[in-house]
Amino acid sequence: MRVIIFLWAAFCIAPDLIAQHQHPHDHDRTIDFPDIPGYYSLVCDLHMHSVFSDGAVWPHIRVEEALKDGLDCIAITEHIEYQPHKADIPHPDRRRAFEIASRAAANTDLIVIHGSEITRRMPPGHSNAIFITDPNKLITDDALDAYSEAKNQGGFIFWNHPDWTAHRKDGVAQLDQMHIDLIRDGLLNGIEVVNTKGYSAEAFQIALDNDLTIIGTSDIHGLIDWDYDVPHGHRPVTIVFSSDRTEDGIKTALFEGRTAVWHKNFLVGLPEYTEPLFQSSIKIVGAEYVGDTSVLSVQIRNHSDAEFLARNLSEYSFQEDHEILSFSAGSDTELRIKTGTRLGNVVLPLEVLNIVVAPRTYLQSELNIVVNSGE
Amino acid sequence: MRVIIFLWAAFCIAPDLIAQHQHPHDHDRTIDFPDIPGYYSLVCDLHMHSVFSDGAVWPHIRVEEALKDGLDCIAITEHIEYQPHKADIPHPDRRRAFEIASRAAANTDLIVIHGSEITRRMPPGHSNAIFITDPNKLITDDALDAYSEAKNQGGFIFWNHPDWTAHRKDGVAQLDQMHIDLIRDGLLNGIEVVNTKGYSAEAFQIALDNDLTIIGTSDIHGLIDWDYDVPHGHRPVTIVFSSDRTEDGIKTALFEGRTAVWHKNFLVGLPEYTEPLFQSSIKIVGAEYVGDTSVLSVQIRNHSDAEFLARNLSEYSFQEDHEILSFSAGSDTELRIKTGTRLGNVVLPLEVLNIVVAPRTYLQSELNIVVNSGE
Amino acid sequence: MRVIIFLWAAFCIAPDLIAQHQHPHDHDRTIDFPDIPGYYSLVCDLHMHSVFSDGAVWPHIRVEEALKDGLDCIAITEHIEYQPHKADIPHPDRRRAFEIASRAAANTDLIVIHGSEITRRMPPGHSNAIFITDPNKLITDDALDAYSEAKNQGGFIFWNHPDWTAHRKDGVAQLDQMHIDLIRDGLLNGIEVVNTKGYSAEAFQIALDNDLTIIGTSDIHGLIDWDYDVPHGHRPVTIVFSSDRTEDGIKTALFEGRTAVWHKNFLVGLPEYTEPLFQSSIKIVGAEYVGDTSVLSVQIRNHSDAEFLARNLSEYSFQEDHEILSFSAGSDTELRIKTGTRLGNVVLPLEVLNIVVAPRTYLQSELNIVVNSGE
Amino acid sequence: MRVIIFLWAAFCIAPDLIAQHQHPHDHDRTIDFPDIPGYYSLVCDLHMHSVFSDGAVWPHIRVEEALKDGLDCIAITEHIEYQPHKADIPHPDRRRAFEIASRAAANTDLIVIHGSEITRRMPPGHSNAIFITDPNKLITDDALDAYSEAKNQGGFIFWNHPDWTAHRKDGVAQLDQMHIDLIRDGLLNGIEVVNTKGYSAEAFQIALDNDLTIIGTSDIHGLIDWDYDVPHGHRPVTIVFSSDRTEDGIKTALFEGRTAVWHKNFLVGLPEYTEPLFQSSIKIVGAEYVGDTSVLSVQIRNHSDAEFLARNLSEYSFQEDHEILSFSAGSDTELRIKTGTRLGNVVLPLEVLNIVVAPRTYLQSELNIVVNSGE
Repeated sequence: MRVIIFLWAAFCIAPDLIAQHQHPHDHDRTIDFPDIPGYYSLVCDLHMHSVFSDGAVWPHIRVEEALKDGLDCIAITEHIEYQPHKADIPHPDRRRAFEIASRAAANTDLIVIHGSEITRRMPPGHSNAIFITDPNKLITDDALDAYSEAKNQGGFIFWNHPDWTAHRKDGVAQLDQMHIDLIRDGLLNGIEVVNTKGYSAEAFQIALDNDLTIIGTSDIHGLIDWDYDVPHGHRPVTIVFSSDRTEDGIKTALFEGRTAVWHKNFLVGLPEYTEPLFQSSIKIVGAEYVGDTSVLSVQIRNHSDAEFLARNLSEYSFQEDHEILSFSAGSDTELRIKTGTRLGNVVLPLEVLNIVVAPRTYLQSELNIVVNSGE
Repeated sequence: MRVIIFLWAAFCIAPDLIAQHQHPHDHDRTIDFPDIPGYYSLVCDLHMHSVFSDGAVWPHIRVEEALKDGLDCIAITEHIEYQPHKADIPHPDRRRAFEIASRAAANTDLIVIHGSEITRRMPPGHSNAIFITDPNKLITDDALDAYSEAKNQGGFIFWNHPDWTAHRKDGVAQLDQMHIDLIRDGLLNGIEVVNTKGYSAEAFQIALDNDLTIIGTSDIHGLIDWDYDVPHGHRPVTIVFSSDRTEDGIKTALFEGRTAVWHKNFLVGLPEYTEPLFQSSIKIVGAEYVGDTSVLSVQIRNHSDAEFLARNLSEYSFQEDHEILSFSAGSDTELRIKTGTRLGNVVLPLEVLNIVVAPRTYLQSELNIVVNSGE
Repeated sequence: MRVIIFLWAAFCIAPDLIAQHQHPHDHDRTIDFPDIPGYYSLVCDLHMHSVFSDGAVWPHIRVEEALKDGLDCIAITEHIEYQPHKADIPHPDRRRAFEIASRAAANTDLIVIHGSEITRRMPPGHSNAIFITDPNKLITDDALDAYSEAKNQGGFIFWNHPDWTAHRKDGVAQLDQMHIDLIRDGLLNGIEVVNTKGYSAEAFQIALDNDLTIIGTSDIHGLIDWDYDVPHGHRPVTIVFSSDRTEDGIKTALFEGRTAVWHKNFLVGLPEYTEPLFQSSIKIVGAEYVGDTSVLSVQIRNHSDAEFLARNLSEYSFQEDHEILSFSAGSDTELRIKTGTRLGNVVLPLEVLNIVVAPRTYLQSELNIVVNSGE
Repeated sequence: MRVIIFLWAAFCIAPDLIAQHQHPHDHDRTIDFPDIPGYYSLVCDLHMHSVFSDGAVWPHIRVEEALKDGLDCIAITEHIEYQPHKADIPHPDRRRAFEIASRAAANTDLIVIHGSEITRRMPPGHSNAIFITDPNKLITDDALDAYSEAKNQGGFIFWNHPDWTAHRKDGVAQLDQMHIDLIRDGLLNGIEVVNTKGYSAEAFQIALDNDLTIIGTSDIHGLIDWDYDVPHGHRPVTIVFSSDRTEDGIKTALFEGRTAVWHKNFLVGLPEYTEPLFQSSIKIVGAEYVGDTSVLSVQIRNHSDAEFLARNLSEYSFQEDHEILSFSAGSDTELRIKTGTRLGNVVLPLEVLNIVVAPRTYLQSELNIVVNSGE
């Protein structure tokens, strides 16, 4: 007996006794952000493992998790040098995990990218090369050769968890000479500013200083649901602003740095992309003055999964709210602005505290409100 | 800042920090039952108090509570003899509470009925007379005169909480000679089988034996939300099966005994009315055999607020379920019936354990399933 | 059948079918803040109405609501000049609502203060006088006389909703000459910076400029549960920092300006009081370095109902968190600080974004962390 | 930033914005039943798969799932003949999955049993042999040889999903001659009456008729959380009544038929074991008469995960409840019995509708209530 709630889902008076509920969690767990002008906002997780390196699941589970989370794209990135299950899975072909995942996604919209984690001691530490064609060729003695081979295959290469305490006892991401050289030679194109649960402000600064694409990944080994407390939480993802819904579109976007990271309730990224993402997420759906007052009631709809937290930078104050506002995910919010006199247009500059555009720096944006003239 | 959740209501990843949620509880708390063939299923609470007798609120709150609960009809039934707030509210006109409530409901669909509680020692104890025109005339020395006057005014009179331990130390409803006489003379037309939180099997038996209309009421004095833990619980109500949405329709239905009581998760009433109510609530929305098996998958939709609990009386057993089934409120349920061979029609007799048609006796009904023939 | 959940309250596999749950909401709705050094933190609602002016409930409901909300003190503040129920409640003695509420609270710890709303046109508009002894004497032709009489009775007088659009079309609180005079003469001692759902930044500025005690009130007329969506939301209250749990203690505190306002998720008040309140709410319960790294794991316990939202002002960054932190209400939070080297003591300066110490100005405080030295 | 809620878990006024909650789900998902006199009630799942046959996870995930669910014991039961991942995992030793799982459970209280699924066409279909020492020896041409070998190794053998529509088009479990022979020869000791989501009344009848131990299993291939909607639902398990917490104890119990199955909200098993399980679950924690009435208020505590649903078989009726009672999982319930006169002892016979002791037959038990004498 499977039960699908169709009417009053949230609080039934008489919950189900005998059969166990099949709650429609899948709906709750999808990660939703609107597209921005000119680009699709594709939700990608570009770092994950299966039993084919040190992960806990067969690769098709990564596909199923992604579909449940509403992702547009994943990259399969097994360690090629680190194979703890080798005694049981001696398969010499490092393409195997990708093949299985790829087949599992065959009749879905999910894009599965072929990648590998190049797993070396510091420097350079661990990196992911994605969009490669044959990971077997990345098994080399010299790390640099692996990076070169990945580049030769057209790979996009990003540095993983540069703040990892196994590599940096102080947890502070920092470039070694080798990283500087890799970047100079186009062998390091991106950097994880978020890996698993961790955000690294220093990695973000390195991205800004060196024009690296910012990346956030789950680096999942176990189960997404457990590690990220789904549906209450979500895995970190990279939102890729792509001109189409193809692997090529994503690749181009990554090389051009068109990304933002969604981690906990924060968006991390350049204003160039996070500003339109904020504007596409937050829409004014109505604005009119209350009675004969000069208090403007504005209906604001948040089309995204982020609860935006914004500090008022305008000259106006509000009738009900404090100067720090919140716009709940997937909700309508009413804001009452005391505009002093009745205006036809109101601009409300805001500092969006959960959109990080540089370490300790938040997006400055504004709401452009056209007052309903009525008739 | 008022927040209305519009998309992913149940589990937001990032709940609202700064503004407080305005949860759409009103939707959750409405009491919903479908109409039955020939009659509207009107949800009525026919027993309540305000500050004009011993209640805690101004009468318009009773209207607001009713609107929030989605009721079709309420009766204002102040004690006429018991006026603990008399020192503060000396108003001599017992019509006052009704007037206020009536005006508060003026621009709504809520029907407000004029009633009064006739509050006497046992026998006869307390009764409600509703559809009366002037409660002032019910203030008499002799209880019998009050009943006669109520009848003269066209009143429908029902016995309140006949199991009350202040009147019956054993909590067992029982007729005194005076009640027998009142019934004989048409001065007692109904009986509460549910009052507040209490159900009385003996009162139900009295109703059956004496052809009294069965009634369930909140008898609210304080706040509905507090006493009935809304929205997790609900007040007891009388579902009146009326040929139209008018006071007259309700009155006729009550005199003709067309009611059922909704209390906790139970419906109490004659099969004549609870059988069509069950049939209107539970609809087969699909039925087809699984693959090439003789296992029939049936989609069953419950359009009511009741979680129906039913014992299988058929010769068939189920593929997944035990012999006691549940159909969650406002939900779809899949039932897989092992019919042995593939049939075009299946009848599934059931004992509906939460529809009580007599003390310790439950509704026998059946699901008539027409198998989808395919294209 | 009353059900009390005692073990696995949050998510039972098999919720209750037949009986309706009696959820322990009362526990969830209490407003909890810790005491501060030298003072009790008493939670007070100093503005409310019953049927004895234009409210909807008998006064004892105000006591019951307060007890459910865990308040320490309420003031009954009927309009003395505005009596819309006068036709029904002609009682000439304006002390009546207080008497009833007071008696209802007799065997509880709730302190009930005698007050009245002095309800005049602008200027001066509406004010509450509390700790008065006889509101009848405040019925005067001249508003000023009412203020003087209230003062003579020892009253503490505060200006209600100075931003009310019925009085100020732009919703902006502003002193008229009469208010200036009242303040000068000690006839206006406080001001509502929060009334009902509204916060007024300008009222807060007036309080700061004129040394008025800041007040936040529900001004409840209907039901607390409905207007404030309890238990998801809460009524605004004034937290009074009192040297004892007595009416006198509260009175002294109010005259000395020892208050903060709790509204939505914001605390509003002088740093003198909100700083110790923050420090009493947030306690370090453990701090040790992770393995052999210089990453310090700190366990932080929030003993209050506020979710504190804090911007990192230190030189350090964090291993997992962004620079804006949140400390959930009634919860433990782990914060991982990258201190560069292993220290014995760490000071973490913070800007607490939901503690407003002046319009657009937030509390600057710090966490003083002593690292556990090990055994 | 990890957040652990410590005080007001259920409904915080200001839920966490910035950090994502780490809800203490693990607590909610544990399967809890009390021990019975003379035996531990050990919660066991005796049928599961990993990547070493056709499952989706590395074996240690099965251990982690079991620990999260609070199980006492699992059996690893790979198909030995069906190895769809053989191209990737060519390991010839069928003991491998058990070895890995066993090592993963090394420092826990979880008992891991060595088993294998003997996967043959009908007859005999699929069976699990558990407590075996070397599954490799079960790879035989003749199914009967595999059963004999399993028996030689001391195995307990039970028939899996005898109602499977791949084997029985009508979904009706039925013995073939071969099964009759296996049972006669001690080569079939138990039968799944519950597999995955399915309950088979006919399998239960076969168990009763042939003295087979009744078994319920998850037969998990994917993820427990997904297939059983944890924490809202739970996997089916076998509760084994064992004299100690050892593998030997469980083995003896299984051969002696000391089991019950927990599936959805039903317990399935012989009254010999389900009666004491009900009695251990339901405890009277107080009983006294209300005031001077003969209405007995009884406090009943349910120590189990089952919501018991019981039909009153006594001569008494109740003051508030209907004749079908429910006792919520992990909760206290008050029942008010109208005993007519005040008694010192009350026996309340019940039919427990969610304890199935034979197809369509429910446990008859009784509550023995000793009235508090007070003084």
